[in-house]
Amino acid sequence: MGWNAPMTEQEKDELLKRLESSVTALLDSVSVCSAGGGPGVTRLLYTKEWLEAQRAVAAKMTEIGLIAEYDDTGNLFGILPGEHSQQPSVITGSHIDTVVDGGKYDGAYGIAAGLAALEYLKETYGRPKRSLEVVSLCEEEGSRFPIAYWGSGSIAGERSFEDIQGLTDGEGVSFAAAMRECGFGLGRHREPARKNIGSFVELHIEQGGVLEYEGLPVGVVDAIVGQRRFNVTVNGKANHAGTTPMPMRRDALEGAGAMITMLREEAIRLGAPLVATVGRLQVSPNVPNVVPGKAEFTVDVRHSEPERLEAFCSWFTEAFRQAAESRGLEIVCLEWLREEPALMDEKLKGDIAAACGEMGIPFRRMVSGAGHDAQMLSRICPAAMLFVPSRGGVSHSPEEYTSPRGLALGVLVLARLLYRLGYEEDHAS
Amino acid sequence: MGWNAPMTEQEKDELLKRLESSVTALLDSVSVCSAGGGPGVTRLLYTKEWLEAQRAVAAKMTEIGLIAEYDDTGNLFGILPGEHSQQPSVITGSHIDTVVDGGKYDGAYGIAAGLAALEYLKETYGRPKRSLEVVSLCEEEGSRFPIAYWGSGSIAGERSFEDIQGLTDGEGVSFAAAMRECGFGLGRHREPARKNIGSFVELHIEQGGVLEYEGLPVGVVDAIVGQRRFNVTVNGKANHAGTTPMPMRRDALEGAGAMITMLREEAIRLGAPLVATVGRLQVSPNVPNVVPGKAEFTVDVRHSEPERLEAFCSWFTEAFRQAAESRGLEIVCLEWLREEPALMDEKLKGDIAAACGEMGIPFRRMVSGAGHDAQMLSRICPAAMLFVPSRGGVSHSPEEYTSPRGLALGVLVLARLLYRLGYEEDHAS
Repeated sequence: MGWNAPMTEQEKDELLKRLESSVTALLDSVSVCSAGGGPGVTRLLYTKEWLEAQRAVAAKMTEIGLIAEYDDTGNLFGILPGEHSQQPSVITGSHIDTVVDGGKYDGAYGIAAGLAALEYLKETYGRPKRSLEVVSLCEEEGSRFPIAYWGSGSIAGERSFEDIQGLTDGEGVSFAAAMRECGFGLGRHREPARKNIGSFVELHIEQGGVLEYEGLPVGVVDAIVGQRRFNVTVNGKANHAGTTPMPMRRDALEGAGAMITMLREEAIRLGAPLVATVGRLQVSPNVPNVVPGKAEFTVDVRHSEPERLEAFCSWFTEAFRQAAESRGLEIVCLEWLREEPALMDEKLKGDIAAACGEMGIPFRRMVSGAGHDAQMLSRICPAAMLFVPSRGGVSHSPEEYTSPRGLALGVLVLARLLYRLGYEEDHAS
Repeated sequence: MGWNAPMTEQEKDELLKRLESSVTALLDSVSVCSAGGGPGVTRLLYTKEWLEAQRAVAAKMTEIGLIAEYDDTGNLFGILPGEHSQQPSVITGSHIDTVVDGGKYDGAYGIAAGLAALEYLKETYGRPKRSLEVVSLCEEEGSRFPIAYWGSGSIAGERSFEDIQGLTDGEGVSFAAAMRECGFGLGRHREPARKNIGSFVELHIEQGGVLEYEGLPVGVVDAIVGQRRFNVTVNGKANHAGTTPMPMRRDALEGAGAMITMLREEAIRLGAPLVATVGRLQVSPNVPNVVPGKAEFTVDVRHSEPERLEAFCSWFTEAFRQAAESRGLEIVCLEWLREEPALMDEKLKGDIAAACGEMGIPFRRMVSGAGHDAQMLSRICPAAMLFVPSRGGVSHSPEEYTSPRGLALGVLVLARLLYRLGYEEDHAS
């Protein structure tokens, strides 16, 4: 008996209650694995807390009858083998690490949701046709070592053990030593790079305020934006704030101020999904009675379409150059980060839409303005992402929150999707 | 035989050569009194270097036949007694202290110029009718302790020993202890407050680029600007730079940027002598991928007319409020410094103009955008200021420079003025 007949409202509500209970219990058991100090959750790669969290997840995997396996990086897989074991696996999951003093949902929710979904599916429908896996990725945030997407990047072949040579954390501990201390490293478990993935689905909190603002429980991600980041240095001339007449000034901060407002106006004019941000600004000499001689700031630009991203960056560098020139200022723009947009798989998005439809759960299509593990996996397999609302749009903060019902609605869609991908005959990839 | 017959060009050139030589020698002997460390001059109040400089000045005073006297604050006076000793003195001079790593001209030039002028006058014309004094004021910059104009303010009764109670420098040394260590303090010498000043004339480098730009050797100051300084705090909401659509942002830095450009545009529109400066800006959290939640900046506004100064401050606080409101930002403007403009004495300015005319030295009237000791003295006696050019408009820097001939032209006008004020019968005040 498959998951095809429509559920009654009562059945759906009972299922949601069950998923609520299991996903929040899992989240709670992971969120206690946190370094002390702040009010939020701090679980950095290869720390004691991180290892405790992976062990708690592994224990839960075993408890619900999955085969728990690590790879050499510390990625943890919980496998529910399918009848056609030669067919590529369907994988869901997210990352177990957090930022410093972050929330309990970012990353961990995707793992807990996958476990809750597989627990339900296995109990209700038994062995799937294709293997289903939940992955607890070791690292995404780049909060301890200067490398991000270590977990998903290693699976996708975008990161390798060469990349971590010589890396140390803020206290001088080497990446290699910290990894070894936790029992991981080349040859300890199995190679991280994988080829046998049929599809990857990541469920994550939105980390923005769009779903909450529109009162929608689910977002289906069309694309993860590409990002480009720049350092802009504006050089003028430091001068006495009293004795330098306005027309004789070469005020670097005033020039920067004009650039920042131009950036916003043009970004608003062009509209979503473009976002452009000046997040950091340093002024020199930065004293009240001296005309600023130098201003340095960052520009972060994101868009889901490579051409439009490129066009905006070309526009602003030229517009900044003109703004500088008209003020007698010198300017240098240096790009220091470039990530291409990642498109989510069309067929998988259709499957998610169908799952939402079957469950009577409204959703919207949207772009992810933040980077996610799914962008790494999208390079080697069809990948998709689902969002649930973040209260106040807040993340990377102890204030991060999604209601238990909000969490369960995401799990319900995920479960229905995994059923479709893992149990239904016509979904062999 | 008085200084009334016109000089030939040759006589004038010879006199300028003499003044060049004496003023530069004096400046050099003072500029070696400097704390090590930077390429510039560092002579902070009540330090070893400061005391050495005052002693060098006192020695020079004695050498040229002046009576050297300190007051309790460490102000040093070199007195050339006049025939009518009951008449108020004519005083010239400036401050002996410097900023950290400053130049050798700011302050010290006014003292060296006064000594060079009196040396010449005494040698050439003997005893004046009215007493002439050169003052080496102990402190103006406020670079060691959080108090400025300590020297001139004490003479004018605008500072008292009560004001320095509890003040300490950056290393925790108390003002009182540092003063005592140098041999100064209440009752050590004579009371600083004075009533018997007929006029005060301060010769100073311009610290701006106007004279150099216009190719003029002398500036006659009409007024020292009033200053008002504010701290402006703009509060928005820190948010994820990727997931927060542009219209949902409350970007404190973007708001600040708009305010900074507005301030400049309006100041340029209103024209000199108004100047408005945002010299310091701090952003929070100040990281590349977070929309800034908070921006704090200073506003420094100066004008020689109190009403226009007030009007501009009212304008910008309201304009900033509207800019904040239209962006959903909160704003607080707090004034933390208010100094009224100081008008220079009309008759003295006429005397300076006459002296310039007699010496064939072109000049322009101008406003001083920087604060000076003359503003303190102007509260108790007719006061005036003369400027000589600053190369590149630079001051408070090792780059500070005025050519020897430029220095001497200032001394020549000062000497002619002091002759008029001290030696001519009709200039009793």
